[in-house]
Amino acid sequence: MPVNLAPLDTSMLLPVPGLRIGTTMAGVRKANRRDLVVFALDEGAQVAGVFTQNRFCAAPVQVCQAHLSAGPAIRALVVNTGNANAGTGAPGLAAAQQTCNALAAIAGCSPAQVLPFSTGVIMEPLPVDRITAGLPAAWADLHAAHWADAAQGIMTTDTLPKAASRQVQIDGHTVTITGISKGAGMIRPNMATMLGFVATDAVLAPGLLQTLVREAADRSFNRITIDGDTSTNDSFVLMATGRAGHAAITTFDSPAGQALAEAVFGVAQTLAQAIVRDGEGATKFITVQIDGGRTEDECKLVAYAIAHSPLVKTAFFASDPNLGRILAAVGYAGIPDLDQALIDLHLDDVLVAQAGGRHPGYQEADGQRVMKQAEITVRVHLHRGEASATVWTCDLSHDYVSINADYRS
Amino acid sequence: MPVNLAPLDTSMLLPVPGLRIGTTMAGVRKANRRDLVVFALDEGAQVAGVFTQNRFCAAPVQVCQAHLSAGPAIRALVVNTGNANAGTGAPGLAAAQQTCNALAAIAGCSPAQVLPFSTGVIMEPLPVDRITAGLPAAWADLHAAHWADAAQGIMTTDTLPKAASRQVQIDGHTVTITGISKGAGMIRPNMATMLGFVATDAVLAPGLLQTLVREAADRSFNRITIDGDTSTNDSFVLMATGRAGHAAITTFDSPAGQALAEAVFGVAQTLAQAIVRDGEGATKFITVQIDGGRTEDECKLVAYAIAHSPLVKTAFFASDPNLGRILAAVGYAGIPDLDQALIDLHLDDVLVAQAGGRHPGYQEADGQRVMKQAEITVRVHLHRGEASATVWTCDLSHDYVSINADYRS
Repeated sequence: MPVNLAPLDTSMLLPVPGLRIGTTMAGVRKANRRDLVVFALDEGAQVAGVFTQNRFCAAPVQVCQAHLSAGPAIRALVVNTGNANAGTGAPGLAAAQQTCNALAAIAGCSPAQVLPFSTGVIMEPLPVDRITAGLPAAWADLHAAHWADAAQGIMTTDTLPKAASRQVQIDGHTVTITGISKGAGMIRPNMATMLGFVATDAVLAPGLLQTLVREAADRSFNRITIDGDTSTNDSFVLMATGRAGHAAITTFDSPAGQALAEAVFGVAQTLAQAIVRDGEGATKFITVQIDGGRTEDECKLVAYAIAHSPLVKTAFFASDPNLGRILAAVGYAGIPDLDQALIDLHLDDVLVAQAGGRHPGYQEADGQRVMKQAEITVRVHLHRGEASATVWTCDLSHDYVSINADYRS
Repeated sequence: MPVNLAPLDTSMLLPVPGLRIGTTMAGVRKANRRDLVVFALDEGAQVAGVFTQNRFCAAPVQVCQAHLSAGPAIRALVVNTGNANAGTGAPGLAAAQQTCNALAAIAGCSPAQVLPFSTGVIMEPLPVDRITAGLPAAWADLHAAHWADAAQGIMTTDTLPKAASRQVQIDGHTVTITGISKGAGMIRPNMATMLGFVATDAVLAPGLLQTLVREAADRSFNRITIDGDTSTNDSFVLMATGRAGHAAITTFDSPAGQALAEAVFGVAQTLAQAIVRDGEGATKFITVQIDGGRTEDECKLVAYAIAHSPLVKTAFFASDPNLGRILAAVGYAGIPDLDQALIDLHLDDVLVAQAGGRHPGYQEADGQRVMKQAEITVRVHLHRGEASATVWTCDLSHDYVSINADYRS
């Protein structure tokens, strides 16, 4: 059961002029489900992406990186679910390339203008024939309004499709930002989530898009964790079609640049949080906020130690205010000169520990009340500096074990 | 169900001359269970210990470190289960000190000659009155043969007591090494397990014991992980009573020194592995061996990434050869210049992946056969150097979630 994640209201998903989307059922792994998605970009669009830092990155990630740095403008994206094409060695690279070749032939562009994406089971050969056989139907389905189909077509263990739209006014022009994401397990992005695609018709001067996609990833997909497993396929792509009609944005310090960046961050954050809300077996949505660190990096260390601790996560699942487990995680996070005698711990508004020990006024009933909520904020103050960091995670439940013990069956 | 861990054969536990052990039921947390243990050392004994590197280390750990560095020979140890006295701030320190004072009065030594240990729930006040009230009965129970009672008296969520004995001949004298340990969750020692106590009557020149305890911890307790949570209370203590009658060992390069060290390592390794075999909810015992690294440290990084991955651990629980998850963990372990195209993966004798991709000869049935075993070795070859490292872990099961969701109830 996702945590406060509503079924997709497809009427809320706004088309982005200059971008069309098509899907089909290619039978990559299972019959009768949308599992192949193509994006077609009109001429003049820019594309930038960030990718997993897993050294075992999947074949399509390697091809994406090569094509993005090669130069010619990207005109099409192809995404399959059901198979990650990771841990597949040289044949996997050839399969990803073959997918690009097939789509390029249909789209009338060069293979280097196609970006391939795959998600699903690792270390099984990509059924490339089924994918290439499905491409004509997906291409024939192209339409600007097909975002919801695409959100469905990239799901794996997700229980709900994930998408978000926003509009912002720039110089009297309406600029649209729409995006989709997927992912529910093997989630501790170190760049981007499993897959995230965001498009806008904003007009940007060359070079700005890469900055924007990095910054957006760092404020959204790079701040979530479900199980601490950084996937082989994480990819987050930002597309700008340049159709909105306003003067090109040349810096993010301008009001227009700021308005666009904030709208993109908002969409990316909604998509990233949706992944946590739909985390495998999740019953709680947990915000972990660390204050008073010397650097943002050390705050992140502590936040992730808490967010990854199986003991902390099972306590949330049980609604058990066994909060010493949070202190223990703070202690082993890896700050060598941390002084435990300075640490404060809040659970929402409840002061649980102060100066490294249980606060005398803390009542178990108060902790219990907060632990029963579906959304909980853990706040730790280190009292050694001015930096802060926030990450989002979920609890660890019986269903997480069931889902991952049975994933391939 | 522990994995290949037999119920304690108490007749196998050999007394160590110069050391006596007493236990009692002090009602620290629950009635009618042994929960208080004392060790009494005859004059002339040496004691050395290694302790958790968790910065939120428990009050008794802080007192142990102070007393061990203070100078006067340690004459007594006191251990309670049921309450960890961690995250308890200044009152916790006072409670640990008070326990030492009470035992010193009974033992006829100074408080600085007593080492206190606690294990159990974190962040609840230590019921020091119940402990001090129980000390006279525990002291009256002192006997050299009481190792099995002590193994029982330090358990928390352990399903079986853990102990081991060995004898070794040095210069025609029989030297005994006996030890106990406890721990089943919050286990990723970074020094020692939750609690481990090993005693020997070997004769050692001053200064050697600290070297031996560090080395023993590094080859045993520092190589196991259950859930990646480094506890606040990890303590591993080595006691040498000096009663065996042989000439004092002055170096571990001598045959006598080597014989002793290997016997101590053997006992420590048995005790450490027993903790994994009895890991919370464990159904499999997994050895993770990394070869071909540039340094031992980078091999450990990879080994722990595999051993901590919830996805890998649930696949072992399900006996599902979803082995791409192991490759993914290798990839995100944190070696920045790792070349995936060099990686080989074996599951026991089965070659699963070679040169970064699925081995053409790999049959799922072979992987399935190994995954069904109760003991499995994962071997990864990095092909970038000569270093190796091995760690031991267990799978992640429904019972792990149940045990930790219900621990305090």
